[in-house]
Amino acid sequence: MKSGVPKSEESGDLVIGSLGERAVANPLHKPPHMYVTDEQKVTVYSSSEDLLPYFQRNEMPPMFERAGPREEIFFNPSELTCGIVTCGGLCPGLNDVIRTIVLSLHWQYGVQKVLGFRYGYAGLSSRAQLEPMTLTPQTVDSIQHEAGTIIGSSRGDREVGDMISALRKHNIGALFVVGGDGTFSGAHELSQEIARRKLPIAVVGVPKTIDNDIFCSERTFGFSTAVEEARHAVAAAHTEAKAAWNGVGLVKLMGRDSGFIAANATLANSDVNYCLIPEAPFSMEGAGGMLEHLEQRLARKHHAVIVVAEGAGQHLFKESGPVGHDASGNMKYKDIGLFLKENLKRHFQNKNIPLILKYIDPSYTIRGCPANADDSAFCLMLGQNAVHAAMAGKTDMFISYWNHHFTHVPFQAAAGKRKKIDTCGTLWQTLLATTEQCDFIQCPVDHK
Amino acid sequence: MKSGVPKSEESGDLVIGSLGERAVANPLHKPPHMYVTDEQKVTVYSSSEDLLPYFQRNEMPPMFERAGPREEIFFNPSELTCGIVTCGGLCPGLNDVIRTIVLSLHWQYGVQKVLGFRYGYAGLSSRAQLEPMTLTPQTVDSIQHEAGTIIGSSRGDREVGDMISALRKHNIGALFVVGGDGTFSGAHELSQEIARRKLPIAVVGVPKTIDNDIFCSERTFGFSTAVEEARHAVAAAHTEAKAAWNGVGLVKLMGRDSGFIAANATLANSDVNYCLIPEAPFSMEGAGGMLEHLEQRLARKHHAVIVVAEGAGQHLFKESGPVGHDASGNMKYKDIGLFLKENLKRHFQNKNIPLILKYIDPSYTIRGCPANADDSAFCLMLGQNAVHAAMAGKTDMFISYWNHHFTHVPFQAAAGKRKKIDTCGTLWQTLLATTEQCDFIQCPVDHK
Amino acid sequence: MKSGVPKSEESGDLVIGSLGERAVANPLHKPPHMYVTDEQKVTVYSSSEDLLPYFQRNEMPPMFERAGPREEIFFNPSELTCGIVTCGGLCPGLNDVIRTIVLSLHWQYGVQKVLGFRYGYAGLSSRAQLEPMTLTPQTVDSIQHEAGTIIGSSRGDREVGDMISALRKHNIGALFVVGGDGTFSGAHELSQEIARRKLPIAVVGVPKTIDNDIFCSERTFGFSTAVEEARHAVAAAHTEAKAAWNGVGLVKLMGRDSGFIAANATLANSDVNYCLIPEAPFSMEGAGGMLEHLEQRLARKHHAVIVVAEGAGQHLFKESGPVGHDASGNMKYKDIGLFLKENLKRHFQNKNIPLILKYIDPSYTIRGCPANADDSAFCLMLGQNAVHAAMAGKTDMFISYWNHHFTHVPFQAAAGKRKKIDTCGTLWQTLLATTEQCDFIQCPVDHK
Amino acid sequence: MKSGVPKSEESGDLVIGSLGERAVANPLHKPPHMYVTDEQKVTVYSSSEDLLPYFQRNEMPPMFERAGPREEIFFNPSELTCGIVTCGGLCPGLNDVIRTIVLSLHWQYGVQKVLGFRYGYAGLSSRAQLEPMTLTPQTVDSIQHEAGTIIGSSRGDREVGDMISALRKHNIGALFVVGGDGTFSGAHELSQEIARRKLPIAVVGVPKTIDNDIFCSERTFGFSTAVEEARHAVAAAHTEAKAAWNGVGLVKLMGRDSGFIAANATLANSDVNYCLIPEAPFSMEGAGGMLEHLEQRLARKHHAVIVVAEGAGQHLFKESGPVGHDASGNMKYKDIGLFLKENLKRHFQNKNIPLILKYIDPSYTIRGCPANADDSAFCLMLGQNAVHAAMAGKTDMFISYWNHHFTHVPFQAAAGKRKKIDTCGTLWQTLLATTEQCDFIQCPVDHK
Repeated sequence: MKSGVPKSEESGDLVIGSLGERAVANPLHKPPHMYVTDEQKVTVYSSSEDLLPYFQRNEMPPMFERAGPREEIFFNPSELTCGIVTCGGLCPGLNDVIRTIVLSLHWQYGVQKVLGFRYGYAGLSSRAQLEPMTLTPQTVDSIQHEAGTIIGSSRGDREVGDMISALRKHNIGALFVVGGDGTFSGAHELSQEIARRKLPIAVVGVPKTIDNDIFCSERTFGFSTAVEEARHAVAAAHTEAKAAWNGVGLVKLMGRDSGFIAANATLANSDVNYCLIPEAPFSMEGAGGMLEHLEQRLARKHHAVIVVAEGAGQHLFKESGPVGHDASGNMKYKDIGLFLKENLKRHFQNKNIPLILKYIDPSYTIRGCPANADDSAFCLMLGQNAVHAAMAGKTDMFISYWNHHFTHVPFQAAAGKRKKIDTCGTLWQTLLATTEQCDFIQCPVDHK
Repeated sequence: MKSGVPKSEESGDLVIGSLGERAVANPLHKPPHMYVTDEQKVTVYSSSEDLLPYFQRNEMPPMFERAGPREEIFFNPSELTCGIVTCGGLCPGLNDVIRTIVLSLHWQYGVQKVLGFRYGYAGLSSRAQLEPMTLTPQTVDSIQHEAGTIIGSSRGDREVGDMISALRKHNIGALFVVGGDGTFSGAHELSQEIARRKLPIAVVGVPKTIDNDIFCSERTFGFSTAVEEARHAVAAAHTEAKAAWNGVGLVKLMGRDSGFIAANATLANSDVNYCLIPEAPFSMEGAGGMLEHLEQRLARKHHAVIVVAEGAGQHLFKESGPVGHDASGNMKYKDIGLFLKENLKRHFQNKNIPLILKYIDPSYTIRGCPANADDSAFCLMLGQNAVHAAMAGKTDMFISYWNHHFTHVPFQAAAGKRKKIDTCGTLWQTLLATTEQCDFIQCPVDHK
Repeated sequence: MKSGVPKSEESGDLVIGSLGERAVANPLHKPPHMYVTDEQKVTVYSSSEDLLPYFQRNEMPPMFERAGPREEIFFNPSELTCGIVTCGGLCPGLNDVIRTIVLSLHWQYGVQKVLGFRYGYAGLSSRAQLEPMTLTPQTVDSIQHEAGTIIGSSRGDREVGDMISALRKHNIGALFVVGGDGTFSGAHELSQEIARRKLPIAVVGVPKTIDNDIFCSERTFGFSTAVEEARHAVAAAHTEAKAAWNGVGLVKLMGRDSGFIAANATLANSDVNYCLIPEAPFSMEGAGGMLEHLEQRLARKHHAVIVVAEGAGQHLFKESGPVGHDASGNMKYKDIGLFLKENLKRHFQNKNIPLILKYIDPSYTIRGCPANADDSAFCLMLGQNAVHAAMAGKTDMFISYWNHHFTHVPFQAAAGKRKKIDTCGTLWQTLLATTEQCDFIQCPVDHK
Repeated sequence: MKSGVPKSEESGDLVIGSLGERAVANPLHKPPHMYVTDEQKVTVYSSSEDLLPYFQRNEMPPMFERAGPREEIFFNPSELTCGIVTCGGLCPGLNDVIRTIVLSLHWQYGVQKVLGFRYGYAGLSSRAQLEPMTLTPQTVDSIQHEAGTIIGSSRGDREVGDMISALRKHNIGALFVVGGDGTFSGAHELSQEIARRKLPIAVVGVPKTIDNDIFCSERTFGFSTAVEEARHAVAAAHTEAKAAWNGVGLVKLMGRDSGFIAANATLANSDVNYCLIPEAPFSMEGAGGMLEHLEQRLARKHHAVIVVAEGAGQHLFKESGPVGHDASGNMKYKDIGLFLKENLKRHFQNKNIPLILKYIDPSYTIRGCPANADDSAFCLMLGQNAVHAAMAGKTDMFISYWNHHFTHVPFQAAAGKRKKIDTCGTLWQTLLATTEQCDFIQCPVDHK
């Protein structure tokens, strides 16, 4: 299977939600040449191996609906109130997304009122009693230079009925939900209940995962910035490692289920010698294990750099009992960074080999950065397309990106799935060839 | 036509050059799962509109050959000497590419000797008498932290016979040419003459254009870094503009024929009010012209930011006689930056309206940066794929990138063409919708 | 004379202005141990050569009054309205200074109303009719992350009577003036007229000169940031120079009368070969001139980096007639950057020696940066001390910094003078020893 | 006592070591005006309170000998071999210092051979058998762009006799020791033994302490860079804190005995609410303690930022038994960062108040940075003055910086002492006034 490519049985039958007939002319200033129809589709396939079977059966491959402004829209902008909520951990670009949604609603469509619900779904709960912020072009004028999210975020549960009460209380017609797959599963429930009650409220998602692992989108905002910042931590680890006799720099990077940040930071700093990710189990002990390999490398070179994604090596903890869940419902992982740090120290101490290990965990300094230029431009397009979708009455869906096109994807298509590194693909195979760590990484089944 | 998408009549018939039968086993350490065959292809089409005609005719769309290591290779690594040459203007990532080629040749294939020809094609000329540098893993160990190119570069002519003499004198089996379309047209002539003489010398290109306008590759290295750096200049222009009553910040960015840097820097800094690019002619004077529009904006807001690509607005100079060419054969363009600066000053002076104009031309500070993380990782993959191609005996071709795959493209497919911004596409239409400058930009013919 | 050290006859007799008796208890929260009396002084001398004459005459050397909170203050904070105005060119840290003044007035003293006059002295003119901005802790909360000045700036004349009308209209008790020596000479005139009219209005300056050349202060804000940013331009020049055969990178930096930025950027990038500053005249032509020296260097090394302060080499223009003045009354200088660029090109063309010259003028990208950490902390202390001075009824003076202490200096002490690099001192002599450019730099008279 | 100012009884009687008569003319190219004599002194006093007692007794205050080139030198450069060793933790600027020493020895004095002993004092031990690196202008050409130290570093013991054997084996005439006070105490022992054996070997120190706490020097290299980098971590903590309801960002910064980094990073990011340093003990529990204060702040503002120096609050651990020492002989401190993290969590959990705490420990990413421009220029001057001192036969001393002059200080003057923040001085009092944390910080005795 190609990584991240939805099979037809997985997403083909899911339908983009719609609030109903569109009867309002799009007020976009000097209508540009970008009006898109619901019939325009984007293929997710890219090579002859992908396409051949479809040609043989003479049927079009699965495709996503293209995002963009529709010539007719559902809402009357002058009567519409919109809401924005940001959920989960911080990610570079959140303020860019908020700003773009506000500016696009205001300048492109003429929507007069936008509210920012505070601290994630908590701001939509009756218990918390948090007043939403009013967001105007003035409020958001230069927030893109600040990291974080000006409306706050949180992890945690939500009660759908409670949320609908809050939306109705504030007369919200379109709610923009910026978050990850946990957040989207809540947004799906909310959309379903709205549909059941036949309310004219659109729920449109902007995917946020610093790990870049949302299913059905080849890219998410903040990831490029995260790799750039991760690189500084990796460079520091290399500096510390080289400066010591038998120096080892160990960096733990984000990546609960998918090692994209770790792998890309490794390719960007080819001084990394070992890169450990959740998708590629590895052995520590024994002949051919990582410890032996590291021992041999130190004997030869006297320094090494290890990058580990936070979700890597969970198989090494298997015996140690059940794990808990955090407030977002994510399984709490064992700390592979500290595990490696302690195991390395113990191993070399037992063998009486000097080891100077420096451990770096840059997590929040990465999450707490403003977006780089790539991500800022990407956030602008994501945010505008989310606004176009909501104005057109699309609901129960999020904006994704495929083959240079922004697309619409139903929330459910991404539910419970994650994009992962294809360990037989170019990214990981290039990394293996560059780091030469393949001895102790379990190789995937040869599928040729 | 979709921007940058080669029509079949344009590239379909061009063939990737080959030195002959491959009879040597690829010595890649612990052979990864990435061996690629010449039959694997990458499609350049991405949407239902693109694919539909092919399905109707039941034929596969045009595709590029996939890059990557081949199981059998042409050269015997232990006997091979390779050369590298970098040509044209500086671009972030040149040293990353040099480093990767040297490290990949050495560690992945076991090639013992790599030479860096100095100062572009001049280093292959008999006149210049420049001794090549010997490039080893030690020499290139940390050059990725330095901007520029350690082997130097230059623009300018070459004599093919002279170059072949230099290659034979140094016993070169594979020459890696890093440069733009002028450089590639030289490399194509060289390859043709080598073929005529039946010499076993591969000529493999790595495309280098900071403007991101090489035909047949959706991305080139250094572009992401350039946009990041350009953004700082644009931010400074915005700062200066806002701090003055009727302040205007004017930034000239790279982009001779294609406005990708200007457009992306504009989307990344949505404080830009006007973005002028070569692909979208505009009017200065008269009703609805840029000067009138700017006048109205200053009356309302008292500041403005203008970004102009160096090749924009050349139609405004038409009357002023013929232009020359630089040493690479590029047409010398009139300086639109100074033209705008002077015209704006004169216009507002004539109208007795105060104007504080700050002009920023950051060219060399952008070109003279080390690559960012995205570009470094991209350079690593480009360089390794160039090495795989050369080892497999591919020649008269360069490495490009399409739909997440590295591909092989004949030099000729890119000759005399450039990738340009599709002014009916998402990038430019989003920009028009964001800046609202569409009044004085000539709109492309409505093609719907 | 030591550079920058005021002789007693120069500043000794100037008195710090005072509005009168202080009768209000300082409301500083939890009074810290920092109350300072007017009798505490800071010496400006630092070595045995400096001190010896005073010991021989048994008299204390000249000293500045220490800045800091006074136990009794002049104004009743709850009734006070303050104004801030920023004048002249942009400088990193302006927003830090504005923010600190507002926060200190509000939180430390309880002042309720602070106005920001727009666009420099123009905001205090009756003609311009620019309404001042109300500055609150909320308004200024995160402006330190933005470059420039949120209240705008301008160069230009002022009419003292007009300014007093504006101050009275807005009921201003203390005006904070952030600017250079031209601005301060206006502030002095204003203070004098206020004194003549016996008005209870304090005028307190915060010196702003990116060139670091205000007389009587060893440091000004923004300078450290400017050197840091200048360094990037110099690094790019070095990159371009090294990448070309006979490449020359030429960087023009700020420094109208004093070469501090150029000299410090040179020491920070010891790849610079020539550093030209206003304080050290040099010869271009003829034997031993700069052109000959450069020719010899290129013959040996094939690349060179030149840094030139904008006010350097004005003696080379002498014959070319009178120069004008800008709106601040500063003499307009001839453009030494373009002069060098053209002279170098002509010289090498005449001699038929190849030359690849890259010219970099980073001015506004340096001025338009946010302050670095050093400058931000410095701005905080400057701003708080300006507030302490104004609250104590000090007037006609500015805050300066000497020997690790903030001090009070009368505006007049700095009028018409500038701090310059002592060409016999450590900074310049170290630079000469590092760059070995001393052949064509006129050496100062040997004063030992 | 003024912070960091040596009393006469402390350093007055210590003498700068000297190898003997200077009989060689200084070969400095085009002798600049910077020759300095041993009689030139730099005062360390700065204010009227400091100077008055000396004037009353009519005696000169204590002073340091000025650094700089001497007209006659001790060593014959053409016969001299020099060594460099870097010890202790990494610090931005180490490679700048190494580079400057090598370039100054080579270009300014004509010394032909410089050796870099590997991994600190270990490289001078017979056991480790580490061959020194030969350092030439080529080797060090662009190492200033790399963080760390190219010759490696280590903590740990040394055997003086062993070190002298190594120096003699390699025929070293001058050894440059870059390190902190532990390193300098080793260098002093070495100098003493060299003197006892009457060997013509100079031992000259360049102080390295990222904490900026070497006694008798008002500044050390790397500190400015460290504050700049620390600021990014503090900004991330603020971002995380503000984004959560009752969010607390907790940052542990370097500073074992002195809180300079923490205090300066706080003034540079005035979003910090609490700054805890070793010099200012504080109470956690009970009325008026930090926990109560934080509770009240969260109730009001719902977020807070805490910066803690690693050596702060050691009094809170008193009961918990003896601590160990690291390889450099530094006392191992209890981890105040984790202590605060756990205590805060427990306190708020017990009170059933929500708390989202994000803990950031950026240590190695700060140490592993290249030097900023300020530090690079400072390193250049430090390194050149160290070379001048060694060439003049000075020994058993290090280069320090006071009142804008580089000076010579005997190793012993700094032994066992540290520069600390004067909690009654401007820096700390400004911080207290800015953060308003003075309630739970123990105020120093009122000394007015």
